[in-house]
Amino acid sequence: MLKYNEEKERQSVKGALALRPEINKIVDQVCQDGYKNILWLGIGGTWASCLQVEVRMKEKSSLNFFCENAAEYLATGNKKVGPGTICIISSVTGTTQEMVDGVKAVKEAGAKVLGFIDKADAELAKDVDWCISYPVNEQLKFFMVADRFMYNNGEFPEYEDMYQNFETYLPDALVSVAKQADSFAQKFVDEHSDDPLHYFVGAGSLWGGIYSYGMCFWEEMHWRKTKTVRSPEFFHGFLEIVDKDSNVTVFVGEDSQRCLSERVAKFLPRICGRYTIIDTKDYDLPGIKPEYRYAVNHQVMRTITNRIDVHMEKKNCHPMEIRRYYRRVEY
Amino acid sequence: MLKYNEEKERQSVKGALALRPEINKIVDQVCQDGYKNILWLGIGGTWASCLQVEVRMKEKSSLNFFCENAAEYLATGNKKVGPGTICIISSVTGTTQEMVDGVKAVKEAGAKVLGFIDKADAELAKDVDWCISYPVNEQLKFFMVADRFMYNNGEFPEYEDMYQNFETYLPDALVSVAKQADSFAQKFVDEHSDDPLHYFVGAGSLWGGIYSYGMCFWEEMHWRKTKTVRSPEFFHGFLEIVDKDSNVTVFVGEDSQRCLSERVAKFLPRICGRYTIIDTKDYDLPGIKPEYRYAVNHQVMRTITNRIDVHMEKKNCHPMEIRRYYRRVEY
Repeated sequence: MLKYNEEKERQSVKGALALRPEINKIVDQVCQDGYKNILWLGIGGTWASCLQVEVRMKEKSSLNFFCENAAEYLATGNKKVGPGTICIISSVTGTTQEMVDGVKAVKEAGAKVLGFIDKADAELAKDVDWCISYPVNEQLKFFMVADRFMYNNGEFPEYEDMYQNFETYLPDALVSVAKQADSFAQKFVDEHSDDPLHYFVGAGSLWGGIYSYGMCFWEEMHWRKTKTVRSPEFFHGFLEIVDKDSNVTVFVGEDSQRCLSERVAKFLPRICGRYTIIDTKDYDLPGIKPEYRYAVNHQVMRTITNRIDVHMEKKNCHPMEIRRYYRRVEY
Repeated sequence: MLKYNEEKERQSVKGALALRPEINKIVDQVCQDGYKNILWLGIGGTWASCLQVEVRMKEKSSLNFFCENAAEYLATGNKKVGPGTICIISSVTGTTQEMVDGVKAVKEAGAKVLGFIDKADAELAKDVDWCISYPVNEQLKFFMVADRFMYNNGEFPEYEDMYQNFETYLPDALVSVAKQADSFAQKFVDEHSDDPLHYFVGAGSLWGGIYSYGMCFWEEMHWRKTKTVRSPEFFHGFLEIVDKDSNVTVFVGEDSQRCLSERVAKFLPRICGRYTIIDTKDYDLPGIKPEYRYAVNHQVMRTITNRIDVHMEKKNCHPMEIRRYYRRVEY
């Protein structure tokens, strides 16, 4: 397959799952010492990941948790942040200004920070209270933290069984998804690489991934116009501009909000001639227990979109690492 | 001016402000009886209004408050909702299915509901615990509730002075804004009525209004394609697809997040040839104290966009009350 290193992908997920003892040591200590609330802080793509984990926590937890966009937090503040707040962040480079300033601000307010900072020698890695450095797999890291907090709060009895299931089967299952998705991805790109505008629709724990896929991948990396729409909001205004020539892709996931995207997927063919439904349920996950599929649907989606990306990059002759403005001009 | 009934607009705002004693009677009783948290519940445009009031409350309040999209809440739930939750909603018709079901669900969870339901004889008006019926002015109603909760919590010492200032001057000030904005609105429409895609950018208490303006007005009522972007997110991916032919309008407000939109407004001219900056600060609000302008910047914005709408409607020969699908087909 084009630009696909099967073993590298397998090891990447395996290594991320292996962070769990290191994560649990921190979370367990926090829970033992006591804490007031949990803040997921991000900007751009990392804010989107916060939105994903927020849905999972809403499904299960009565813990006090919330998300903040770092720039908005810096401007407006949030009086919930203070001593006893545990802030979780992720940063690849450790140099994103809003995150550097955001960490300073929450610490000044009295919060403690757990940072997943890929670059272990970044300044930011010294500013946080606990740092874990391991490449990519951002959502998986966030979910491992959230799930442990909920387990410790008695809200996730199947936690151990689920992660044992993932450790045994997930790395291979995602490789399998990549293979299942590849020919679809190529056809999708053949059909949509020149779209003047592409709509991505979805909900639940996929929503953050969809928001980020439109903005950080199609816009930032492919230079292609997108709009992302939450599934329930599709029916409250947006639908009026959909017609036979609209390019609309609906991602249907497997968590509590599946029904919201199914509703769009069911209605869309009546009004749209260029629609695509990507349902994570259509992909085999060998070994993964059916009852845990919801918890990895975002990784199935990401694996599929990764295949779309490599074909887009080739078809459009546009290397994904090119930036016009981002970190190239002052703003 | 085209389709503008000055006296009707003036009386509309005046009448909304006159709801305050009725609102305060309810809020004061709730505060006296005690409550656990405040839920702002909406869908589509009313969810957007919830996002607006959430920013105001973050600026000032340590109260426990949060927003939910009604459809997402119905699918996923939220364990914060229970006895002691005060839920606030707004509905013009009282018949939006997600809101009817949402009110049922929060009440089953033990919450009490304050509903602004324009149609006093709607079924929904009977389902809520307290109903106030007065046409439009949704955001103003929400802000009056939020501000009273914060005042009662000792977080808004200037509350009385501010509302006295608004009652004396706001109705006329907004009429004045409409007049100040009209020729700009006509020019804007002349330039942008045929845009293949229009971007609206903004932040703070304007953000919900911008989201709703793109989706409920341009998409739903004008059948024009839009994308709305939060100001801080502009710099995290989206900017890569902006070039000299992109149509980008930035709304700059006057609250705590003004700086986030100013940053976009400052950078945009370097990369975009068809940009518009709409700064609420450029509009005179005769009699309104400078320190309270932030609290009505969303109404200044709405007054300006109302003028854009009437000119769009005329130029595009597209009556704003037409719907293709919304409430016309089953979905």
